[in-house]
Amino acid sequence: MPLLYLEDLHVGQRFTSAPRTLDRETMIRFAREWDPQPFHLDDDAARGSFFQGLAGSGWFTAAVTMRLLVDGGVPLANGIIGTGGELLWTKPTRPGDTLHVECEILAITPPRSKPDRGMVEVRCLTLNQEGETVQSFTPKLVVFRRPAVAEDGKGV
Amino acid sequence: MPLLYLEDLHVGQRFTSAPRTLDRETMIRFAREWDPQPFHLDDDAARGSFFQGLAGSGWFTAAVTMRLLVDGGVPLANGIIGTGGELLWTKPTRPGDTLHVECEILAITPPRSKPDRGMVEVRCLTLNQEGETVQSFTPKLVVFRRPAVAEDGKGV
Repeated sequence: MPLLYLEDLHVGQRFTSAPRTLDRETMIRFAREWDPQPFHLDDDAARGSFFQGLAGSGWFTAAVTMRLLVDGGVPLANGIIGTGGELLWTKPTRPGDTLHVECEILAITPPRSKPDRGMVEVRCLTLNQEGETVQSFTPKLVVFRRPAVAEDGKGV
Repeated sequence: MPLLYLEDLHVGQRFTSAPRTLDRETMIRFAREWDPQPFHLDDDAARGSFFQGLAGSGWFTAAVTMRLLVDGGVPLANGIIGTGGELLWTKPTRPGDTLHVECEILAITPPRSKPDRGMVEVRCLTLNQEGETVQSFTPKLVVFRRPAVAEDGKGV
């Protein structure tokens, strides 16, 4: 997969990640460490809760999403460096769900004070196996331009 | 610490979490599993990167923030159930940083179609030991009303 620089991107460009199935053990282990609330930890406690059954922490959904993006979902040459954006959880995740991420570039701001980088706004939807959106995240990313290359082939 | 229901909240109310110091091992372990990019994993690789040194994943900052909120930072009786909001990373985190979270209620929407719950918008700033904001998150939370109690003292 070719790694992309700012010059390689355009508004409307789309990316799709690989899928990943959520296993109960990882979901609960994440919750135990970072979001230890009963509805993320235990089936019985979750049944009578807002979620009506064991649900992944929203931060678990976000972490899985990030891993899918880093593993080739959005192949940026300098990595995925986000300054943040709107993060919405639109549906709970459940053990056994298979998620993937679909991203679309919404806007590109060319370099200003720093000539080697621009800002790219991208909307990343995390979808389950039914095609339902479980998370929407619209971050601004720092994306670098392709490094200049001198006539001898070395970077300048 | 008394657990709070919707009736106990007002706009402008503030909450402050306990502090937590970020250890390098946990920071790197989180990155290895969820955000395995060189600048979150390795000092040498991080030195020449955007972050100019090892930095925690933004999702690690978010996870630590959530844990601080769950551990009493925002003591809601029915737990912290967020539908999402604006999430911004304003400064990198470093190994050894000590973070805490300060939240303020911005708006309260009373119950509408579902009479047992309202929506509460809260801004949660995660600060480091220098008082610098490393993350700003402004979620909407689902907050339940205090359950009615019958004259015999049992819930109705």
